[in-house]
Amino acid sequence: MATPTTKADTQTFLQHHRQEIERAAQTIAPYTRRTPTLTTDLDPDLLLKPECFQVTGSFKTRGAFNAILTLKNQQTNPKGVIAVSSGNHAQALALAAKTAGIPALVLIPEDANPQKVAATKAYGAEVRQAGITFANREERLAEAIEETGYMLVHPFDNWDIIHGAGTAALELLTDNGLRPKTIVTPCGGGGLLTGTALAAKSTNARIRVYGVEPEVADDAARTYASGSLQTLPTSPETLADGVRTTHIGEKNFEVIVERRLVDGIVTVSEEEIRQATKTAWTRLKLALEPTGALPLAAYLAGKIPAGDPDEPTALILSGGNANLAVIADLLQQ
Amino acid sequence: MATPTTKADTQTFLQHHRQEIERAAQTIAPYTRRTPTLTTDLDPDLLLKPECFQVTGSFKTRGAFNAILTLKNQQTNPKGVIAVSSGNHAQALALAAKTAGIPALVLIPEDANPQKVAATKAYGAEVRQAGITFANREERLAEAIEETGYMLVHPFDNWDIIHGAGTAALELLTDNGLRPKTIVTPCGGGGLLTGTALAAKSTNARIRVYGVEPEVADDAARTYASGSLQTLPTSPETLADGVRTTHIGEKNFEVIVERRLVDGIVTVSEEEIRQATKTAWTRLKLALEPTGALPLAAYLAGKIPAGDPDEPTALILSGGNANLAVIADLLQQ
Repeated sequence: MATPTTKADTQTFLQHHRQEIERAAQTIAPYTRRTPTLTTDLDPDLLLKPECFQVTGSFKTRGAFNAILTLKNQQTNPKGVIAVSSGNHAQALALAAKTAGIPALVLIPEDANPQKVAATKAYGAEVRQAGITFANREERLAEAIEETGYMLVHPFDNWDIIHGAGTAALELLTDNGLRPKTIVTPCGGGGLLTGTALAAKSTNARIRVYGVEPEVADDAARTYASGSLQTLPTSPETLADGVRTTHIGEKNFEVIVERRLVDGIVTVSEEEIRQATKTAWTRLKLALEPTGALPLAAYLAGKIPAGDPDEPTALILSGGNANLAVIADLLQQ
Repeated sequence: MATPTTKADTQTFLQHHRQEIERAAQTIAPYTRRTPTLTTDLDPDLLLKPECFQVTGSFKTRGAFNAILTLKNQQTNPKGVIAVSSGNHAQALALAAKTAGIPALVLIPEDANPQKVAATKAYGAEVRQAGITFANREERLAEAIEETGYMLVHPFDNWDIIHGAGTAALELLTDNGLRPKTIVTPCGGGGLLTGTALAAKSTNARIRVYGVEPEVADDAARTYASGSLQTLPTSPETLADGVRTTHIGEKNFEVIVERRLVDGIVTVSEEEIRQATKTAWTRLKLALEPTGALPLAAYLAGKIPAGDPDEPTALILSGGNANLAVIADLLQQ
């Protein structure tokens, strides 16, 4: 990994990535949606970026289209693309590959949300689930790459994916008149958090950026606190099925930890995730998946450091592809 | 009721009401939200105006603030305001009255959605439910007006309410680049449909406007078809608890039926309402109440006459204050 960097280095680094995020925004514009920024009855200082309204129902479409179209533009012409994903990256990659006319193969662990698996197949990707677990998935991925010759599109440890993800924060920061001083995203592998940090800090170094993960999946919080990469022994059991990765990526580590472009990683309990998801559905009228409600969970629990009064906090609500049985259960409690 | 009118009359009529809708938009702007226009993965020709994101969770806030603030501006200074409502008008009136510093009394039938009743009380209104039914509510209202001296704010047969409701369509028609050729709204008493028709036909006489009501509450469809006011014998039992009125209002009759400023009234079955509500929650990621999903039900059932290809159809999804037990049940089917 890169050695610690000076402030001047970071300015150059931020300028480069800012340009790449702006380029990503242009690249993906014909295929993705500019999601609105919503205000709510809950709290006048809260802004919401509901990525549940993004194409395929999650922010992942931004990165997937940027990665696939950048491959095409570079005339790399891969035989096909491949990824391992618990669901939202799979759907996004499937649609982007289909749009670009490239075959896609996605490995999804056997216990993934069945609605996400069905959607991935519906977007035209080949899906393999048999015998794939969180524990063996990297090994199975390596075998499949060797077998097919397809090009890996990593769900978070990939600059094109990160730059695509950063376009959500870019929109949030350029929507007329809205000037969030704090931006909060979920954190699994760190793709959305990394892209958001690059977009925010290249706009204004004083904008605070926080990532939120479940308490039972606190590898990023421990990595941030210790300064060295921490890995969960097994994939965590959490309601937030989109952040079941065991550690953040190398590129994400560089931005979040080494360069300190993120101000903190906050953890939330399963009960806090549950309540936030219910609040989203019943009070905000947003049908979020629990992963998408992670920033709301941290905000409602008072875990995001307050800015000055009247300084808005923006929550990037990453997706809405919920397991309906889980939601039905929540609504009845 | 007014006698049939000439085309020239209707132009003057439309110009007057257009000005009033534009004035309403200015009056309510500080207290209401400009809801976004959403596109979806479902159909590229569909535009959604999700009024579930409006203050209090429904479009009713637009009319309530316009009515109450117009009363204040006219220095009428009522002792208090009073209404009978199954829920969303009640919440909106309660908030608008509280904002204006006027007491509000709302009569809500005993079998109304309990979440709507709780919210109305939370916004500071006095609520009476004991012994109030759909059958006796007008009588009880007359008694309460006599007892309190409060001023009636009718939920739909009131021009200020209609002009406020029309601001949703005004936004839809002025959002950059989006040019719906058809606009669809729910129809209960006809307030939203009337305001929408006035906003649309004063923009362009060729914009088609449709109202949607449950089959079991088909008074507006029969009124439109027959040209004379039809009334349901009793308040209908429907999942769409926001449109349980037994007939449309006089002012609504003038616009919808006499002046023919609406192109049709469509009815949908309870099963179509059920499926549309589920589609909203699971595919559109919008937590709508069944009444808010009526236009979607008609659209999905192919009951809205298609325009030319690529001519967008906009659905005004009126609210999101759902009965959670009903929704939980839907999600498990």
